[in-house]
Amino acid sequence: MSTTREEALQMHRENQGKLESTSKVPVRNTKDLSLAYSPGVAEPCKAIFDDKQKVFDYTMKGNMVAVVSDGTAVLGLGNIGPEAALPVMEGKAVLFKSFAGVDAFPICLDTTEVDRIVETVKLMQPTFGGVNLEDIAAPNCFIIEERLKKEVNIPVFHDDQHGTAIVTAAGLINALKLNGKSLSEIKVVVNGAGSAGIAIIKLLLRMGVRDVILCDSKGAIYEGRSVGMNDQKMEIAKVTNKDNVQGDLEDVVAGTDVFIGVSVAGALSKDMVESMNDDPVIFAMANPDPEIMPEDAKAAGAKVIGTGRSDFPNQVNNVLAFPGIFRGALDVNATHINEEMKKAAVYAIADLMEDSELHVDYVIPAPFDERVAPAVASAVARTAMETGVARKEVNPEEVAEKTSRLSIINK
Amino acid sequence: MSTTREEALQMHRENQGKLESTSKVPVRNTKDLSLAYSPGVAEPCKAIFDDKQKVFDYTMKGNMVAVVSDGTAVLGLGNIGPEAALPVMEGKAVLFKSFAGVDAFPICLDTTEVDRIVETVKLMQPTFGGVNLEDIAAPNCFIIEERLKKEVNIPVFHDDQHGTAIVTAAGLINALKLNGKSLSEIKVVVNGAGSAGIAIIKLLLRMGVRDVILCDSKGAIYEGRSVGMNDQKMEIAKVTNKDNVQGDLEDVVAGTDVFIGVSVAGALSKDMVESMNDDPVIFAMANPDPEIMPEDAKAAGAKVIGTGRSDFPNQVNNVLAFPGIFRGALDVNATHINEEMKKAAVYAIADLMEDSELHVDYVIPAPFDERVAPAVASAVARTAMETGVARKEVNPEEVAEKTSRLSIINK
Repeated sequence: MSTTREEALQMHRENQGKLESTSKVPVRNTKDLSLAYSPGVAEPCKAIFDDKQKVFDYTMKGNMVAVVSDGTAVLGLGNIGPEAALPVMEGKAVLFKSFAGVDAFPICLDTTEVDRIVETVKLMQPTFGGVNLEDIAAPNCFIIEERLKKEVNIPVFHDDQHGTAIVTAAGLINALKLNGKSLSEIKVVVNGAGSAGIAIIKLLLRMGVRDVILCDSKGAIYEGRSVGMNDQKMEIAKVTNKDNVQGDLEDVVAGTDVFIGVSVAGALSKDMVESMNDDPVIFAMANPDPEIMPEDAKAAGAKVIGTGRSDFPNQVNNVLAFPGIFRGALDVNATHINEEMKKAAVYAIADLMEDSELHVDYVIPAPFDERVAPAVASAVARTAMETGVARKEVNPEEVAEKTSRLSIINK
Repeated sequence: MSTTREEALQMHRENQGKLESTSKVPVRNTKDLSLAYSPGVAEPCKAIFDDKQKVFDYTMKGNMVAVVSDGTAVLGLGNIGPEAALPVMEGKAVLFKSFAGVDAFPICLDTTEVDRIVETVKLMQPTFGGVNLEDIAAPNCFIIEERLKKEVNIPVFHDDQHGTAIVTAAGLINALKLNGKSLSEIKVVVNGAGSAGIAIIKLLLRMGVRDVILCDSKGAIYEGRSVGMNDQKMEIAKVTNKDNVQGDLEDVVAGTDVFIGVSVAGALSKDMVESMNDDPVIFAMANPDPEIMPEDAKAAGAKVIGTGRSDFPNQVNNVLAFPGIFRGALDVNATHINEEMKKAAVYAIADLMEDSELHVDYVIPAPFDERVAPAVASAVARTAMETGVARKEVNPEEVAEKTSRLSIINK
């Protein structure tokens, strides 16, 4: 066990976890008590009873996100159950608060049944202003998210899908600025057909990428493949791999411009990188060890290389996306986080980097870059208003300013 | 609307509610991030996966109480729904934290069905170390509490029942010290057969009171009464009112020693008080206006008078009980809050008042008496260990000391 890991264990034990619930108001005397509790509290109760929408004004709901997990796909640990998942969900809540002033609370559920998870989140809806689904295994994560998006009227976001997709896409946009290629002409291979891989492909297609092939452990996914398919892969097969290419990753990756790995360590060899087009872009995001080590990819001719790790350049870290996305969505009291808002987040992250900053080892902002959350929040709020999912009008500049103020990273 | 109420509305709006989730650990740099989140967080996850009980050591669970309501019996407002109930549940969470350092989080549920409420709480169990049921109407509150006590392995406590009963009983014990009567010889009438009335009677019987009659709006409840009965009233009828007294409150209250009202304003007249035995004790807890105003009760001969209001002497305020009770239960990792622990809380509250302090206008400690939560927590922890529901041994003195330290009222 490394020093970091021993320290982590100790830190969790000494603090009995990482999250606490604290009062925003003083309770020092009878007067305070009469405002925060009986009899004064009856007034906001009555105001909300008269107009349910006022719950966003008078309670914590408008700034509170549920971080919901069933513990079936936690980090690289797999299905470890809801109790063992709790440290991750607490950590996620801490990041929400630290990076964008969003209150968040872990809800680890003692079931893996889609119907019961959906039902539970629906029943808890009065308390929360948004739902972040986390570490729920595919394909349930897709079904749960789709159902909740239809059945609740607060934003629902599965971060393992969309957070990863948004940050990857932002990094890709900036990488292409460096090698002079455009989204519409690149050939992309995504390796790994879990929740992140599927979401990355959907987002890239919406952003104008036209040539993508998804691979899983059985090779390229194509329409008509019969082995190892599921609903999501079938859906993807219809809109990707137009030439119905078959074969292993090795066959498929040759002659492409971009490799995006959300699969397993070592999946990409130096030979495979050498078989790609000039100046290939490699996002090798398997955790903890990437599909190919950056030095090997570079030696084989890769131009821009990103991973999921903080000790290599270009870390694809979801913390660049989810805090600002929810900040923006909550500030306009959005009913949904729609595709336009996700795209707005991609460009907010990519475009905050000046051309003069861009470098093969720096196409993605660092996690603690203080420009990120305000830029994302502002872009998401603006796009929510433009696309009709905002229940409240705000000034996007003020959202950025507020986000900056609420981020403890600025303090 | 009074000044307090206008201020309350403004305070709730300005702060967007009263509760926030905050980090107990710093997140300022990559090192912090690696401890609180990936990769360090995997260590407590693995430790809990290996031994589920460790979730109490490494996460917030061991100090986190769910404040669960369906919004069906909120304050004196009735069935106002889960959104409108949220300010009260947030306030309750604030009190948990302020008075005993217990983290608490509101869960307002969008259903009034017993099965769905029980199911939801069970599914959320991995996240919480205890469940405080709040403002759920009778008879569902009884059924939900009974079922949850059997079906989860963390403490479940319906504060509207037991909190009120515990504080009332503590006040009664001290009132009897002043008029020289004993629990075993007094005649008691409880008016109001809702959750609080039923719980008060059950607690008094366990504490040695032998002569009690419960009244509802139709008068005395007796075995064989056919009108307006339910399961709880039938159960109470079997163990109270041994002489099968019938009649209205007016008939029943004559010749008794104690009147406990959890009913409606004005239910007790001066004539009725005059018909009671010498030095009667009156707890008139209807809100906001009591069953009889203290000055009228006093004029009619009452010795000790308590109400639910902070502007009269002897306020029966649940905040004297629930923070310390959960503090003690959580500190020993109790599986239940059993009857012995409730009795221990009663005597902890009553006995912390010195005989020299006792006075007809001061038989119950004030809400901000800093002795209360430590005394209750310590007694509850000790009794949990003695009665075999503690999963952890602690020193009760240390529980008291810790509670004192955690109470912001001391800061």
